[in-house]
Amino acid sequence: MTSIQVAVVGSGTASPELARLAGEVGRLLAERGCVLVCGGLGGVMEASARGAKEAGGITIGVLPGESRVEANRWIDHAVATGIGHARNLAVVASGDAVIAVGGEWGTASEVAFARKLGRPVVLLGHGPAIDGEGIHRAETAAEAVELAVSLVGA
Amino acid sequence: MTSIQVAVVGSGTASPELARLAGEVGRLLAERGCVLVCGGLGGVMEASARGAKEAGGITIGVLPGESRVEANRWIDHAVATGIGHARNLAVVASGDAVIAVGGEWGTASEVAFARKLGRPVVLLGHGPAIDGEGIHRAETAAEAVELAVSLVGA
Amino acid sequence: MTSIQVAVVGSGTASPELARLAGEVGRLLAERGCVLVCGGLGGVMEASARGAKEAGGITIGVLPGESRVEANRWIDHAVATGIGHARNLAVVASGDAVIAVGGEWGTASEVAFARKLGRPVVLLGHGPAIDGEGIHRAETAAEAVELAVSLVGA
Amino acid sequence: MTSIQVAVVGSGTASPELARLAGEVGRLLAERGCVLVCGGLGGVMEASARGAKEAGGITIGVLPGESRVEANRWIDHAVATGIGHARNLAVVASGDAVIAVGGEWGTASEVAFARKLGRPVVLLGHGPAIDGEGIHRAETAAEAVELAVSLVGA
Repeated sequence: MTSIQVAVVGSGTASPELARLAGEVGRLLAERGCVLVCGGLGGVMEASARGAKEAGGITIGVLPGESRVEANRWIDHAVATGIGHARNLAVVASGDAVIAVGGEWGTASEVAFARKLGRPVVLLGHGPAIDGEGIHRAETAAEAVELAVSLVGA
Repeated sequence: MTSIQVAVVGSGTASPELARLAGEVGRLLAERGCVLVCGGLGGVMEASARGAKEAGGITIGVLPGESRVEANRWIDHAVATGIGHARNLAVVASGDAVIAVGGEWGTASEVAFARKLGRPVVLLGHGPAIDGEGIHRAETAAEAVELAVSLVGA
Repeated sequence: MTSIQVAVVGSGTASPELARLAGEVGRLLAERGCVLVCGGLGGVMEASARGAKEAGGITIGVLPGESRVEANRWIDHAVATGIGHARNLAVVASGDAVIAVGGEWGTASEVAFARKLGRPVVLLGHGPAIDGEGIHRAETAAEAVELAVSLVGA
Repeated sequence: MTSIQVAVVGSGTASPELARLAGEVGRLLAERGCVLVCGGLGGVMEASARGAKEAGGITIGVLPGESRVEANRWIDHAVATGIGHARNLAVVASGDAVIAVGGEWGTASEVAFARKLGRPVVLLGHGPAIDGEGIHRAETAAEAVELAVSLVGA
C-alpha cells in the first residue's frame, strides 16, 4: 500500500483566513509524508494544494469536469471525472481521512459521504452546520492534521 | 412541463414511526398530483412509494445499482443509475423540492446536494444533524408536504 | 414488476430520416405497452419520445444535467442525474433492451455499456461502427422493435 | 501544467500475450516521462502499471469502488470513485491520449467516451470491434506509444 491519502475539502472561494488555514493544513500533511487529495479547483482546494507543494508534498486533484486543464497549478496529478458534483463522493472516498476547512453545501455533501463510507472527518474553521458521530472539530491546522492522521485506520 | 416532482429521502431501513410518516407523505403528495421521486429501495423509500401508490400516485425510483430488479414493488418507473451513492445527487436533482423523513449520512448527503442545487428542503422526524438556509422543519407529514409544495419555484 | 422498459439511444441532432425512424420506434414501443427510456434531450431522443407520446405511451428522460428543465417536451418523467456523459450508463441500465437509431460516439458508449451489462442491442439506421455478440441489426423500425422485445429476458 | 498523462485501458483479465504488450506499453510510457492512468484493477491495468513502475514511472488508478484497497500493488495514487462502470469516463477523460490493449465491452465504452471527448485513441492487440475517426491501430507496443504521444494536442 502507498502513503496515507488525506482529502482536504472546502469552498471554491476562500477568505484570506480560510486560505491561510488550508495552506497550513497542506503544508503539515506534506511534512508528514501524506498525499493530499482535493477537488482540484480554487479557494480552499488551491490553497491547500499550494501549501503541500511548497513543502515538497504530492497533490491529487479530482475534478468535476472533463478536462485536466481546469486544475489549479499546484495539482501534480489530475483526474477529470466528468461527473460534476457527484465527484464529491470520489474526493472523500479517496481519502483515508477528511479535513474540511470552512465550506458550504458542497463541503457538507463531502462530510456526509465521508461518514457514510466510514472515513473520519475533522472540521476546521467556520464551515457547514453538520454534526454526528465521527465528526471532530479542531481549533488549529496543526490540531486538525494531528487528529486526522491519528484517526486513520482507528 | 410535467407535474411537480418531489423527492422523498430517508434511510433504507425505517422504524415503524418513520415508515408511517413516510407513507403519509407519499399519500399526501399523490393526492396533490405530485410525482414522487425516491431512491427506489427499502425503508423510507419503500414506505413513501407505497403511500403514493395506494393513493393512486406515480412513483419514480432512482436506484444505485445496475438493474431495475432491486426496486421495491411500489415503484412505477425505475432508473438504474449504476453509480452507487453518487445517485443521491440524481435523486434530489430530480425533485423540485425535497422532503427528508428521518435519515442518516446518506440522507445528509442528499440534503446537502439539494441545497447546493438550490432545492428547498423540509426535514421531518428525527434525522441528520444538518442545518442552514433553505432547510425547514415540519412537525407532521401534512405540514411537510404543504411546505414543500409551497416552496417549489418560490 | 412494471412494464418492459426499452432504451432508445441516438444522437442529439437527427437527420429527417433518423428522426422519422426514431419516431416510428417510439410509436411502436408505445403500442406494445413498453415504456420508453431515453436521454431526454433533442434529436433521436426527442423524436422517439414524441412518437411514443403521440401513441399514448409513457416516456422517461435520463438527463445529463442538474435540472429537469432541459428535458424535451415529450418527456413524462425526467431524472436529472447531474453526471454528464456518465448518465449514458444509466440510460441503458434502465432498459431491458436497447435500440440505437443512428448515433455517434455517445451512442457507441451506450451500446458498449449495454453489452457490458448484458442488455440486448438492436442497431437501426447508419450509426456507430461497433459490433460484437449480442448486437443485432434491423432494417426497419418494426423489425427493430420486434427484435428488441423478443430479446428481453431471452 | 504537469506531464503528459496517457490512459491505458483493457480487460481486467489478460492473456499472457496481452499482459506482455500492456507491460511494454507501461514501460515505454514511463521511459518517456508520461504518467500512466488506468482503471487500477487487474489484467491489462495491472500489467501496464507494473511495467511503468518497473521503469520508474508514476501510476494513477481510477477505481470503480469506494476504497483504495482494491487497487493493484503497482498503483502509486488511487482515486476511489465509487461510481462503478461510470468511472470509465473518468479514466479516459484523465488521459491526454488513450491506448487500448485488447479489451472487451468495458474497453469499448472507454474508446467511445475518449472519442466523444476528442481524445486520440490507439488500439493494440485483439480488442473490441469499434472503429471511426480518431481511432488508430498499432502493431507493436512501441508503435502504440509513439503514436499516442505524437497525437497529444495534435
